[in-house]
Amino acid sequence: MTAAGVIALLEDGRTLTTPVLRAAVARLAPPMDTVASYHFGWIDQTGQPAEGDGGKAVRPALALLSAQAAGAPAEVGIPGAVATELVHNFSLLHDDLMDGDEQRRHRDTVWKVHGPAQAILVGDALFALANEILLEQGTAEAGRATRRLTTATRRLIDGQAEDISFEHRERVSVQECLDMEGKKTGALLACASSIGAVLGGASEADADALEEYGYHLGLAFQAIDDLLGIWGDPASTGKQTWSDLRQRKKSLPVVAALDAGGPASERLGELLAADAKNPETGAFSEEEFALRAALIEEAGGREWTSEEARRQYATAIAALDKMDMPEGIKRKLVGLADFVVVREK
Amino acid sequence: MTAAGVIALLEDGRTLTTPVLRAAVARLAPPMDTVASYHFGWIDQTGQPAEGDGGKAVRPALALLSAQAAGAPAEVGIPGAVATELVHNFSLLHDDLMDGDEQRRHRDTVWKVHGPAQAILVGDALFALANEILLEQGTAEAGRATRRLTTATRRLIDGQAEDISFEHRERVSVQECLDMEGKKTGALLACASSIGAVLGGASEADADALEEYGYHLGLAFQAIDDLLGIWGDPASTGKQTWSDLRQRKKSLPVVAALDAGGPASERLGELLAADAKNPETGAFSEEEFALRAALIEEAGGREWTSEEARRQYATAIAALDKMDMPEGIKRKLVGLADFVVVREK
Repeated sequence: MTAAGVIALLEDGRTLTTPVLRAAVARLAPPMDTVASYHFGWIDQTGQPAEGDGGKAVRPALALLSAQAAGAPAEVGIPGAVATELVHNFSLLHDDLMDGDEQRRHRDTVWKVHGPAQAILVGDALFALANEILLEQGTAEAGRATRRLTTATRRLIDGQAEDISFEHRERVSVQECLDMEGKKTGALLACASSIGAVLGGASEADADALEEYGYHLGLAFQAIDDLLGIWGDPASTGKQTWSDLRQRKKSLPVVAALDAGGPASERLGELLAADAKNPETGAFSEEEFALRAALIEEAGGREWTSEEARRQYATAIAALDKMDMPEGIKRKLVGLADFVVVREK
Repeated sequence: MTAAGVIALLEDGRTLTTPVLRAAVARLAPPMDTVASYHFGWIDQTGQPAEGDGGKAVRPALALLSAQAAGAPAEVGIPGAVATELVHNFSLLHDDLMDGDEQRRHRDTVWKVHGPAQAILVGDALFALANEILLEQGTAEAGRATRRLTTATRRLIDGQAEDISFEHRERVSVQECLDMEGKKTGALLACASSIGAVLGGASEADADALEEYGYHLGLAFQAIDDLLGIWGDPASTGKQTWSDLRQRKKSLPVVAALDAGGPASERLGELLAADAKNPETGAFSEEEFALRAALIEEAGGREWTSEEARRQYATAIAALDKMDMPEGIKRKLVGLADFVVVREK
């Protein structure tokens, strides 16, 4: 698929999903409906309609494609697309607050604009709404879908817990980092990639194959995210420069560089160990972050992470062969995976 | 039923529920399992086993009785008892953080001890766990129960949103306050009072009758809570003196007093309007809070709230007649309601 084809695919997913997502959010009691609308980029800080950047919407597109992979119309996947998008945004609202992130999608985060209480409350509401949207379908398939979504959400929360605990540890192994990212990012993408199929009545084996695709796609996605978290262009990502280094995130490039050995790896290890004891790292100059980034690259962390993204991408694509699905749908799932590993934001 | 009978009933509920609740909490990834165990009073701040006050456990007792009301063994209600207890504690963890409450059950709250991020994260995890515990039963009844729990949780969150917004408003009507408390407290008690019956295969009409009992019991419970929030003995409640006045809560006694008219009501209105513009109310002396409490009482807010608790209690008891249930179980449900309206903590 061409890049334009993938953009159109994401756009189609948004077109089918957004009205249902908006109607779901409109159920929230004031002021939570307004706060959520701000988060999704539908209104600005003053309450005026906005043409905001609501995110890439990879998950809705995956959910709709997964319904089609199971031979159902894309529309069957809509409640699943909306539910995974709600869970994803619940986690963004809470994670931004826990991590102290002030910017997302080029705008101030909800806790910065509306305060911590609203970020907590609206996150909770979106999480509850996700289950409500699925369960009100009232079918056995919706029950199965809710169970898979619940499992994914629990793993997502476990992953966030590990991510936070890693920030307080001096060393984290590459395997621990991959496990954490599998929970934090892989689990929900796995769910998004199979939930439409589950709603469409797919067998457990087919749903599992799609989950496997989504899980490894999630790990590829996260590897790219980790690269962008250090070397991404703030104009594209909407985050600060050296965003992950500022937060001392033990992301893949960092742990791979520390594991690699050699002079750059050792120098990096000494610097980061000193940083961990220094409460002033937030006030570091651009040059100090640039030095750390250069050492990570010199130790091979950047290259290893790029290769890991390609490995996870290949595993994801291979999983699609475990399921019998229309060729046109498989091509689109491959196209989405291509998009995920070449994106710049 | 005697008071001792009710204590034994609550204790039986705890005995059946706690091992399953503990096993559920043990599924959480570290350090969330530890943080949750601290919250439930199973360990102290140093991680040592504690004989903590885990709360009154009214909800588990109700869930088990509701299974029996539907003719099922109490054990059928256990997943429902655990799930409602998990949702209740999810809301406590988040509400304590949002409200800035430093004490619960005579101990420092989780956000005070383990920090805001853990309070958010463990709350999220308990919420997800509640759905997991129910849905893994894999039955149609469990699907129905999860749907009712989800609806109750959404209403609970709406109620908390309204409660927060009331603190920023000068006047709130008695009806608005009752609506808010119906969502914040009534909805989950309604769910606890019917979830065991739903798991036991009760008809929708029977489940609705039990919900009606639980909803009005919840409003009676909250009316008593509002009285304790102003006039409760800190040694019993485990909260600060004048706890709700410190937080400027527009609780029932306050709104009823403001609505009553007359000299004390007007004087109270002037004082609270001035307080709302004064950032220093947190530093008020005991005497200043005592003056406000005396005006609320003089204006009739205390008496009205006591009567409202009795009215809601009577409506709750009347709802039990809408369902055909064993006399012994009905007696226990009445006994629990008696306990709720005479408690001192």
